[in-house]
Amino acid sequence: MEFYDTIRSRQSVRSYKPDSIPQDTLQRVLEAFQAAPSWANVQPWELILVSDPGLKAELQATLSEKNPGRAAIVEAPIVAAAVGIEGKSGFYKGQASTPRGDWMFFDLGIATEHLALAAASEGLGTVHVGLFDFAKAGEILGVPAGRSVVELIPLGYPAKTPSRVPRKDLKEFVFKDRHGQGYL
Amino acid sequence: MEFYDTIRSRQSVRSYKPDSIPQDTLQRVLEAFQAAPSWANVQPWELILVSDPGLKAELQATLSEKNPGRAAIVEAPIVAAAVGIEGKSGFYKGQASTPRGDWMFFDLGIATEHLALAAASEGLGTVHVGLFDFAKAGEILGVPAGRSVVELIPLGYPAKTPSRVPRKDLKEFVFKDRHGQGYL
Repeated sequence: MEFYDTIRSRQSVRSYKPDSIPQDTLQRVLEAFQAAPSWANVQPWELILVSDPGLKAELQATLSEKNPGRAAIVEAPIVAAAVGIEGKSGFYKGQASTPRGDWMFFDLGIATEHLALAAASEGLGTVHVGLFDFAKAGEILGVPAGRSVVELIPLGYPAKTPSRVPRKDLKEFVFKDRHGQGYL
Repeated sequence: MEFYDTIRSRQSVRSYKPDSIPQDTLQRVLEAFQAAPSWANVQPWELILVSDPGLKAELQATLSEKNPGRAAIVEAPIVAAAVGIEGKSGFYKGQASTPRGDWMFFDLGIATEHLALAAASEGLGTVHVGLFDFAKAGEILGVPAGRSVVELIPLGYPAKTPSRVPRKDLKEFVFKDRHGQGYL
């Protein structure tokens, strides 16, 4: 798919068909995740692709009852748990290089969005689910210390095409040379 | 450009031609940034497009002498300062919704990578520069309290095509159902 069409077609999908994902399609999506840039190329990430129905139900229970992503965790054929490896990104010889500390969270934003966009280019849906019990999800998936589950990302064919969500106008947030100076 | 070609063509570019960027090209890149998803669609970001040579020189001085992105800050026709708005993403009624606190940093990873990929699709180069004096950069650009400069992103036509940087093999970090179980 053309790049800008991909950007436009990526929406947060919360309703999935049970159809499985062909292996070659999944491979391309994983390679897009793999290609993501990170701080000094440390690649502080892992992906656990959960397809076992029992594990998906356990993961679903780590979301609150009100979370709009709840149904998607069991409906989608795969839930990708994005795991961050702590203490690498933004560190040099064990010391944080910036006042922001660990850049893992930033790098995981980049990499999970590579996955979401690649999925969109294949006609697959995703949604970034970040509101759940991280520690409990880590226990369920056997994630060792020094790593943590950052997001759960359902991955599958959309049952419904969501309506487009509006964005702020560019004039509201793009400035020229100094904060507050209109650009456009 | 085709989506996967865009993913492959995005490299960290640290050497730029002085050529300016056509307005319609820049507009498409900004719209890709605008389309990025964020926590509850709060869009906790702003962009300051710095083209003034004096300001670029001041920003360059916020990088250490050893930073490999230093030359790029003055060479590129535009430096996009990505500004994060604090206390919105991952918050509900003023309270952090998760133990991770502010998701602004995660959302900025997503949005800046939308910009980097859109740039690549236009034949433009970028590099994520995250190692500089954030507070000083904020002062230079007049960024108000409650916001901070997260990254400086040079944007322009590459003077050199960088060589491809290797990545970990998928088998090293993609697991099936539980951490450590081989998927592929």
